[in-house]
Amino acid sequence: IIATMSLEQAAKIVSDVFYKYAGEDDKKQTLSRDELKKLLQAHCSHKPDSVTKLDKLVKRLDDNKDNQIDIVEFGALIGMMANNCEAGFREGH
Amino acid sequence: IIATMSLEQAAKIVSDVFYKYAGEDDKKQTLSRDELKKLLQAHCSHKPDSVTKLDKLVKRLDDNKDNQIDIVEFGALIGMMANNCEAGFREGH
Repeated sequence: IIATMSLEQAAKIVSDVFYKYAGEDDKKQTLSRDELKKLLQAHCSHKPDSVTKLDKLVKRLDDNKDNQIDIVEFGALIGMMANNCEAGFREGH
Repeated sequence: IIATMSLEQAAKIVSDVFYKYAGEDDKKQTLSRDELKKLLQAHCSHKPDSVTKLDKLVKRLDDNKDNQIDIVEFGALIGMMANNCEAGFREGH
Protein backbone atom coordinates (compact mmCIF):
# COMPACT_ATOMS: atom_id res chain seq x y z
CA ILE A 1 0.00 0.00 0.00
CA ILE A 2 2.75 2.42 0.97
CA ALA A 3 4.23 2.38 -2.54
CA THR A 4 1.00 3.65 -4.03
CA MET A 5 0.66 6.39 -1.45
CA SER A 6 1.31 9.61 -3.20
CA LEU A 7 3.75 12.34 -2.21
CA GLU A 8 0.76 14.56 -1.50
CA GLN A 9 -0.60 12.10 1.05
CA ALA A 10 2.82 12.13 2.68
CA ALA A 11 2.69 15.95 2.68
CA LYS A 12 -0.76 15.76 4.26
CA ILE A 13 0.61 13.60 7.12
CA VAL A 14 3.46 16.09 7.60
CA SER A 15 0.89 18.92 7.73
CA ASP A 16 -1.42 17.09 10.17
CA VAL A 17 1.38 16.18 12.58
CA PHE A 18 3.05 19.61 12.32
CA TYR A 19 -0.08 21.66 13.05
CA LYS A 20 -1.19 19.30 15.86
CA TYR A 21 1.92 20.33 17.86
CA ALA A 22 2.45 23.84 16.44
CA GLY A 23 -1.06 24.73 17.57
CA GLU A 24 -0.32 24.14 21.25
CA ASP A 25 1.08 27.60 22.04
CA ASP A 26 -0.06 31.00 20.76
CA LYS A 27 2.30 30.78 17.75
CA LYS A 28 0.10 28.41 15.77
CA GLN A 29 2.17 28.47 12.55
CA THR A 30 5.49 27.38 14.03
CA LEU A 31 6.95 24.78 16.38
CA SER A 32 8.74 25.98 19.47
CA ARG A 33 11.65 23.90 20.73
CA ASP A 34 9.40 22.20 23.30
CA GLU A 35 6.69 21.48 20.76
CA LEU A 36 9.31 19.93 18.46
CA LYS A 37 10.57 17.82 21.37
CA LYS A 38 7.03 16.51 22.12
CA LEU A 39 6.45 15.81 18.41
CA LEU A 40 9.70 13.83 18.12
CA GLN A 41 8.97 11.84 21.26
CA ALA A 42 5.57 10.84 19.92
CA HIS A 43 6.44 10.28 16.26
CA CYS A 44 10.08 9.34 15.79
CA SER A 45 11.80 6.15 16.94
CA HIS A 46 15.39 7.41 16.60
CA LYS A 47 15.07 10.86 18.17
CA PRO A 48 17.67 13.22 19.64
CA ASP A 49 18.37 11.62 23.01
CA SER A 50 19.98 14.61 24.68
CA VAL A 51 19.27 18.28 25.17
CA THR A 52 22.38 19.25 23.22
CA LYS A 53 21.36 17.08 20.25
CA LEU A 54 17.89 18.68 20.28
CA ASP A 55 19.40 22.17 20.38
CA LYS A 56 21.77 21.25 17.53
CA LEU A 57 18.81 19.98 15.50
CA VAL A 58 16.76 23.15 16.16
CA LYS A 59 19.75 25.32 15.20
CA ARG A 60 20.26 23.36 11.97
CA LEU A 61 16.58 23.53 11.00
CA ASP A 62 15.95 27.13 12.02
CA ASP A 63 17.06 28.82 8.78
CA ASN A 64 15.62 32.28 9.57
CA LYS A 65 16.92 32.22 13.16
CA ASP A 66 13.60 33.12 14.83
CA ASN A 67 13.97 30.24 17.30
CA GLN A 68 10.84 28.68 15.85
CA ILE A 69 10.52 25.96 13.22
CA ASP A 70 8.08 26.69 10.40
CA ILE A 71 6.61 23.98 8.21
CA VAL A 72 9.17 24.37 5.41
CA GLU A 73 12.04 24.13 7.91
CA PHE A 74 10.23 21.11 9.39
CA GLY A 75 10.16 19.59 5.88
CA ALA A 76 13.95 19.49 5.98
CA LEU A 77 13.69 17.28 9.10
CA ILE A 78 11.48 14.90 7.10
CA GLY A 79 14.21 14.90 4.44
CA MET A 80 16.78 13.97 7.11
CA MET A 81 14.49 11.18 8.33
CA ALA A 82 14.05 9.99 4.74
CA ASN A 83 17.81 10.05 4.40
CA ASN A 84 18.16 7.79 7.44
CA CYS A 85 15.64 5.38 5.92
CA GLU A 86 17.86 5.13 2.81
CA ALA A 87 21.10 5.15 4.79
CA GLY A 88 19.68 2.57 7.17
CA PHE A 89 19.02 0.17 4.30
CA ARG A 90 22.43 0.68 2.80
CA GLU A 91 24.15 -0.13 6.09
CA GLY A 92 22.00 -3.23 6.30
CA HIS A 93 20.30 -2.22 9.53
CA ILE B 1 -6.09 5.28 7.74
CA ILE B 2 -3.98 8.29 6.84
CA ALA B 3 -4.28 9.69 10.39
CA THR B 4 -2.62 6.63 11.87
CA MET B 5 0.17 6.69 9.30
CA SER B 6 3.26 7.72 11.12
CA LEU B 7 5.67 10.47 10.20
CA GLU B 8 8.26 7.80 9.50
CA GLN B 9 6.03 6.17 6.89
CA ALA B 10 5.65 9.60 5.29
CA ALA B 11 9.45 9.95 5.35
CA LYS B 12 9.71 6.51 3.72
CA ILE B 13 7.44 7.66 0.84
CA VAL B 14 9.57 10.78 0.43
CA SER B 15 12.69 8.59 0.31
CA ASP B 16 11.18 6.10 -2.18
CA VAL B 17 9.98 8.81 -4.56
CA PHE B 18 13.17 10.89 -4.24
CA TYR B 19 15.60 8.02 -4.97
CA LYS B 20 13.43 6.70 -7.82
CA TYR B 21 14.09 9.92 -9.78
CA ALA B 22 17.50 10.86 -8.31
CA GLY B 23 18.80 7.49 -9.45
CA GLU B 24 18.18 8.21 -13.13
CA ASP B 25 21.46 10.02 -13.86
CA ASP B 26 24.96 9.28 -12.53
CA LYS B 27 24.43 11.55 -9.48
CA LYS B 28 22.32 9.07 -7.56
CA GLN B 29 22.07 11.09 -4.34
CA THR B 30 20.59 14.26 -5.81
CA LEU B 31 17.86 15.43 -8.17
CA SER B 32 18.87 17.39 -11.24
CA ARG B 33 16.46 20.06 -12.50
CA ASP B 34 15.09 17.65 -15.11
CA GLU B 35 14.68 14.82 -12.60
CA LEU B 36 12.79 17.20 -10.28
CA LYS B 37 10.58 18.24 -13.20
CA LYS B 38 9.72 14.59 -14.03
CA LEU B 39 9.06 13.86 -10.35
CA LEU B 40 6.70 16.84 -10.01
CA GLN B 41 4.85 15.93 -13.20
CA ALA B 42 4.24 12.41 -11.92
CA HIS B 43 3.55 13.14 -8.25
CA CYS B 44 2.15 16.63 -7.73
CA SER B 45 -1.20 17.96 -8.90
CA HIS B 46 -0.39 21.66 -8.50
CA LYS B 47 3.09 21.82 -10.05
CA PRO B 48 5.11 24.72 -11.47
CA ASP B 49 3.47 25.26 -14.85
CA SER B 50 6.23 27.25 -16.46
CA VAL B 51 9.98 26.99 -16.91
CA THR B 52 10.54 30.17 -14.91
CA LYS B 53 8.50 28.84 -11.97
CA LEU B 54 10.50 25.60 -12.03
CA ASP B 55 13.78 27.54 -12.06
CA LYS B 56 12.55 29.72 -9.20
CA LEU B 57 11.63 26.59 -7.21
CA VAL B 58 15.03 24.98 -7.88
CA LYS B 59 16.81 28.18 -6.84
CA ARG B 60 14.77 28.40 -3.63
CA LEU B 61 15.37 24.75 -2.70
CA ASP B 62 19.02 24.59 -3.69
CA ASP B 63 20.53 25.85 -0.42
CA ASN B 64 24.14 24.88 -1.17
CA LYS B 65 23.98 26.18 -4.75
CA ASP B 66 25.28 23.04 -6.42
CA ASN B 67 22.42 23.09 -8.95
CA GLN B 68 21.25 19.78 -7.55
CA ILE B 69 18.54 19.09 -4.96
CA ASP B 70 19.55 16.71 -2.17
CA ILE B 71 17.01 14.88 -0.02
CA VAL B 72 17.05 17.43 2.81
CA GLU B 73 16.49 20.30 0.34
CA PHE B 74 13.74 18.14 -1.19
CA GLY B 75 12.21 17.82 2.28
CA ALA B 76 11.64 21.58 2.23
CA LEU B 77 9.52 21.10 -0.91
CA ILE B 78 7.40 18.58 1.02
CA GLY B 79 7.05 21.26 3.71
CA MET B 80 5.83 23.73 1.07
CA MET B 81 3.35 21.14 -0.23
CA ALA B 82 2.18 20.50 3.35
CA ASN B 83 1.78 24.25 3.74
CA ASN B 84 -0.50 24.35 0.69
CA CYS B 85 -2.59 21.53 2.15
CA GLU B 86 -3.11 23.62 5.31
CA ALA B 87 -3.52 26.91 3.38
CA GLY B 88 -5.93 25.18 1.02
CA PHE B 89 -8.17 24.18 3.91
CA ARG B 90 -8.05 27.60 5.48
CA GLU B 91 -9.12 29.24 2.24
CA GLY B 92 -11.96 26.74 2.11
CA HIS B 93 -10.83 25.06 -1.11
